[in-house]
Amino acid sequence: MIHEVFSTLTARSGADHNLPKVITIVGGNGRMGKFFNNQLTAAGHRVNIVGSNWQGADSLLPQADLVLISVPIESTCEIIERTAQYLTPHTALADITSIKIEPVRAMLEHHSGAVMGLHPMFGPSVESFAQQKVVVCSGRNDAAFDWLLNLMRNQQAELIFSTPEEHDQMMVMIQATRHFCRLTQAVYLAQEKIDIDKSLSMSSPVYRQEIDILKRLLNQNPQLCIDIMLATEERCQAIKSLADTYNRLARLIEKKDREELIKEIESTQNFFSKQ
Amino acid sequence: MIHEVFSTLTARSGADHNLPKVITIVGGNGRMGKFFNNQLTAAGHRVNIVGSNWQGADSLLPQADLVLISVPIESTCEIIERTAQYLTPHTALADITSIKIEPVRAMLEHHSGAVMGLHPMFGPSVESFAQQKVVVCSGRNDAAFDWLLNLMRNQQAELIFSTPEEHDQMMVMIQATRHFCRLTQAVYLAQEKIDIDKSLSMSSPVYRQEIDILKRLLNQNPQLCIDIMLATEERCQAIKSLADTYNRLARLIEKKDREELIKEIESTQNFFSKQ
Repeated sequence: MIHEVFSTLTARSGADHNLPKVITIVGGNGRMGKFFNNQLTAAGHRVNIVGSNWQGADSLLPQADLVLISVPIESTCEIIERTAQYLTPHTALADITSIKIEPVRAMLEHHSGAVMGLHPMFGPSVESFAQQKVVVCSGRNDAAFDWLLNLMRNQQAELIFSTPEEHDQMMVMIQATRHFCRLTQAVYLAQEKIDIDKSLSMSSPVYRQEIDILKRLLNQNPQLCIDIMLATEERCQAIKSLADTYNRLARLIEKKDREELIKEIESTQNFFSKQ
Repeated sequence: MIHEVFSTLTARSGADHNLPKVITIVGGNGRMGKFFNNQLTAAGHRVNIVGSNWQGADSLLPQADLVLISVPIESTCEIIERTAQYLTPHTALADITSIKIEPVRAMLEHHSGAVMGLHPMFGPSVESFAQQKVVVCSGRNDAAFDWLLNLMRNQQAELIFSTPEEHDQMMVMIQATRHFCRLTQAVYLAQEKIDIDKSLSMSSPVYRQEIDILKRLLNQNPQLCIDIMLATEERCQAIKSLADTYNRLARLIEKKDREELIKEIESTQNFFSKQ
């Protein structure tokens, strides 16, 4: 008898696992929304879209197995709250914003069903999840997302499990201050009116790599870069602190203080060698 | 008769061209000095070294076909002057320092024979000149260096001909301010005690590339990095100006001034798109 119940459960969950899911992407007309739409559709699922006019929200949101929030960082929490009003506890809710503490907290607060925070560490120009990293922050009832995580795994994505707190702390360094550095370097080169092609003709491969990185940043929507830098107060503080470090070292250069510069470099070498 | 003279000249210059040269490298015990020693020796030339004690200078310098100055930027001009005292006009004199205005001027002033400024755009860890760039600044009697430039070309080096002025202006951007940026980023990561391995596990490929660049910088002798930043007053000024740009943008971040940030990004995008 017990065996029979187990078999039935396994069979049902197996069947569920293979059933096409019904997914609604809020912000599905954005570039990342389109990427997820393409990937989920290609995997045999049914994807609906709720755009900025919220048309169809009242029919498309309550019936979905999964609702995926794919909107600018700035509006993520507000849109989570608005979306959650349409949901029953049977719908799983996830977001793909590049901060995780606030969106995961908002999803847990406003939705009583399954919740997961995702951060795809790539832009919408990639062709699939293959070789791409996705940070996964557990919220509530992770099992409801197994099919989604397996879809990404099957496409050779690398899933990195993290708490929202650890994720956000790392992203201050990986995203916010790096975006600020790249942006400032690009602004500086433009301000000095440097002949980029001429400089590349004389440059080492490292400089060429760096210019390529700047060019990729400049191909993005400016708003996205600004959103990433301003997303949290912690990020703004880190950027201020980075600018202070630039100033401190620039003053040593101005004073031609070789002794202090050596100390700075040596203690940094020491830190990196222990990593 | 005329034909005969021409033949003889051609034969002689052809013979000269293939004769092993006698080369003295001043600073030949440094890492770049050793690289040139290895390459020139492997090509069949006879290489002697004058080290920091100047031992053998009075016999090795006057008899050389080529004297190559391979010493720290800081002491290049002083050592050019000291070296030139030993030379006859039959010796060709070149340097490989990463600034070119002052060394080429010093060589032209203190030596009456052939002069050329070179800047290999690579570090001593490469195995040959293959696929490497070398900036070449003509000084006097370029023909005396044909064999040397051909040796590099035959190894698939890319030679970039430039004036010392154009070279130095470009290197402010390619070398001095970039070194300062990389150094500051490394100092900042150390100061914030970031867990580099953890950050790499969550990162995009671009961040990984950037950390690799920082690690390579930190593997160098700190003095070299400092020499590159402090080499000219123009470099120190450019670094100050870069730090000012960091500050200007950091203040916009602090004020969360999206409108001004958009303007900065858009005008930079505009500049890069016209390049």
